[in-house]
Amino acid sequence: MMKFTVLTLFPEMFAPVHESILKRAQAAQLIEVGLINFRDYAASKHKNVDDVPYGGGAGMVLKPEPLFAALRDLPPSGGRRRIVLLSPQGEVFQQQKAKEWSWLDELVFICGHYEGFDERIRRLADEEVSLGDFVLTGGELAAMVMMDAVARLLPGVLGEKASAEEDSHSGGLLEYPQYTRPPVFEGMEVPDVLLSGHHRRIERWRRKEALRRTFLKRPDLFAKVEFQAGDFNLLEELIQEH
Amino acid sequence: MMKFTVLTLFPEMFAPVHESILKRAQAAQLIEVGLINFRDYAASKHKNVDDVPYGGGAGMVLKPEPLFAALRDLPPSGGRRRIVLLSPQGEVFQQQKAKEWSWLDELVFICGHYEGFDERIRRLADEEVSLGDFVLTGGELAAMVMMDAVARLLPGVLGEKASAEEDSHSGGLLEYPQYTRPPVFEGMEVPDVLLSGHHRRIERWRRKEALRRTFLKRPDLFAKVEFQAGDFNLLEELIQEH
Repeated sequence: MMKFTVLTLFPEMFAPVHESILKRAQAAQLIEVGLINFRDYAASKHKNVDDVPYGGGAGMVLKPEPLFAALRDLPPSGGRRRIVLLSPQGEVFQQQKAKEWSWLDELVFICGHYEGFDERIRRLADEEVSLGDFVLTGGELAAMVMMDAVARLLPGVLGEKASAEEDSHSGGLLEYPQYTRPPVFEGMEVPDVLLSGHHRRIERWRRKEALRRTFLKRPDLFAKVEFQAGDFNLLEELIQEH
Repeated sequence: MMKFTVLTLFPEMFAPVHESILKRAQAAQLIEVGLINFRDYAASKHKNVDDVPYGGGAGMVLKPEPLFAALRDLPPSGGRRRIVLLSPQGEVFQQQKAKEWSWLDELVFICGHYEGFDERIRRLADEEVSLGDFVLTGGELAAMVMMDAVARLLPGVLGEKASAEEDSHSGGLLEYPQYTRPPVFEGMEVPDVLLSGHHRRIERWRRKEALRRTFLKRPDLFAKVEFQAGDFNLLEELIQEH
């Protein structure tokens, strides 16, 4: 069982963890989710968690004390625990990070605040991670995204079929086009090869289309593709077609 | 008023839009959020929205009919509407996209499904966007992240102070270190310059530290930095310090 602990000022934002895959994973006791409102650790009478910045400037800055106190109060993890600070200055989150984290026993997320946090809070974290190159009002949605990406990699969460499927589509390519019924919808037809029942041709077509898409949409991904025997023939065909 | 419309099979996951900044923006009538469960548009008796893939393979594929019907049933937008398909194959979402979208009257998100969707669904979208290079179980969390990133750019949503602050920190650099009280916390001190009250020195220190962080943590961002007079002196100092 993997534990996700979130330190946040907005625990009520985490309703999505009670839905969909995270809900099922909790019901099956594959994951556990703990939400801690670190405002509860504010020492002042008015439970202040932020204050004006030294040196001036607009906005409020998260104070260090409540987060230090909240982290110190965590029960022992009994295993490999990683403390992650969500911040636009962190390393950009990618699938490789989700895989790495999926081996941990506990992942602790510290959710930042859009107006900034005291620099000393950085000392609490083992690593600092950003969801991407865009600005959010807080780390809550980022934490949920990362929980989803990690949870689906844990054994049993998606079920055998889906995980097997993922493996077969990996290797760093974008996925090939998928089709289901009806064979013709508003004039748009399913490619003949998929209706042929010819397993070998279907595999070849799918691999070729996955290569095509990656080549046209995300050529930057090619650097990490695990090529298979036959790929270079397919790439040569693609180059002649384009 | 900007409208966000989401086509999803999991409208109950969208509780976060009733919290925090999106809640306030709706209360102030700056944004409107519409959630549409496209399962309601499934024609079959059992309201099926997916089916097995042509050509074989594990997993289920979203059928085209319900989404086509749901989109056709949208009321006229009365302005600039963009239809966005959330998919790992899309362009990676960045701040520039959030800015571009903030000029629209309506943004429609189509939330995909982790097992894949019928290729013909792509025809519905004006653009295809991915939250990043990682795999999620669905587009719901991605849609919420993008709504947050766009909504905070709309006039009035964050209030004047915060938006002004953002402008002063832009130019493509990571933010400088922020500090608030106490001046010494567990042996960690606030830098003297921030306590000096010397406005000019504070500005110079902040700019230098922003350049330092960007240089050390995300040198790839330098390609897009808007440099100011004096930056090259600061960079020269930094190079000598490291």
